[in-house]
Amino acid sequence: MSDSPREIEALIETLARLPGLGPRSARRAVLHLLRKRGALMLPLADALRLVAETARDCLACGNVSTSEICPICSNPERATGELCVVEDVADLWAMERAGGFRGRYHVLGGTLSALDAIGPDELRIPQLLRRVREEGITEVILALNATVDGQTTAHYIAEALAGTGATLTSLAQGVPIGGELDYLDDGTITAALRARRRF
Amino acid sequence: MSDSPREIEALIETLARLPGLGPRSARRAVLHLLRKRGALMLPLADALRLVAETARDCLACGNVSTSEICPICSNPERATGELCVVEDVADLWAMERAGGFRGRYHVLGGTLSALDAIGPDELRIPQLLRRVREEGITEVILALNATVDGQTTAHYIAEALAGTGATLTSLAQGVPIGGELDYLDDGTITAALRARRRF
Ligand SMILES: [Zn+2]
Ligand SMILES: [Zn+2]
Repeated sequence: MSDSPREIEALIETLARLPGLGPRSARRAVLHLLRKRGALMLPLADALRLVAETARDCLACGNVSTSEICPICSNPERATGELCVVEDVADLWAMERAGGFRGRYHVLGGTLSALDAIGPDELRIPQLLRRVREEGITEVILALNATVDGQTTAHYIAEALAGTGATLTSLAQGVPIGGELDYLDDGTITAALRARRRF
Repeated sequence: MSDSPREIEALIETLARLPGLGPRSARRAVLHLLRKRGALMLPLADALRLVAETARDCLACGNVSTSEICPICSNPERATGELCVVEDVADLWAMERAGGFRGRYHVLGGTLSALDAIGPDELRIPQLLRRVREEGITEVILALNATVDGQTTAHYIAEALAGTGATLTSLAQGVPIGGELDYLDDGTITAALRARRRF
């Protein structure tokens, strides 16, 4: 549309870069926003700016947070000695939605990958080993995706934690082969957590 | 998620109010934005604020614009004497995407509706009558939706414009019964425009 205001075209193009929104649904969303400039468009702009300016990685666990230490790490009721290791923040959110876990997390930031030359130091694995030794961790739950890289990473961590005295478990029943946590329903995740087994 | 930063929860809730985005896809979009805070999240916030603060209705045609007179109305090449009447801005955008029309528009802002007590003065019908008389309009294309209210509105406008000397046409071939312009593909709209007939 050459005769369209360029600010609106720019907004549609930016919005279309979100996952799940193509050009057509981005246009539709912008039309909706234009009808609700005060009630929705400005609040959305403010909410985005606030999060963009305040979001950071939790210094303790790697979760996304708006404070140095995230609400999970700073919640004393969650200092249970159980530490759940996940690949990324999406998986942490999926575990939280499932609601069955009351301990704390450690976000690796990815998986080991020979192909992509990602070694332990590219992930938050050194920090994990330190936390297990220093924070009285009694159980480490390896909630990694059931992919080749996820399981390679789990085995690497298991070896690195041998001798720390912490019990190692992994999500069991219900995680399909090749499945990614973030795509599973809450019930499946909760069942897998309950049926966790020694690693 | 009680242990989630409330700014991020608020952002997800606001984003989930967009059409086509539920809570799940809003979460996914926010995770994507969090990974691209500088490259996507801040630009999106700025684009939203800019449009929210500058968008207004074109004084001439009712199109959404960031200037008093929209780019279509102020484009001298489009002063063809053809005026295309549409129900809302979404329909104008659909006509522009189809690309077959080089005249100007008049956005009614809805349709007449006895049920909802919407009469001519609730729409931009008085302004339409004035434009047809004052702007040298030779053809008025009634591009209203093929719904009962759309066609009622078209008939009302046709009677009001009788005697102005302007030819009245309507979109013809290709618009399905009950169909709404904004959902049609570009080819259908272009074909309907080419085959327009006297109203
Ligand atoms: Zn944390
Ligand atoms: Zn205009």
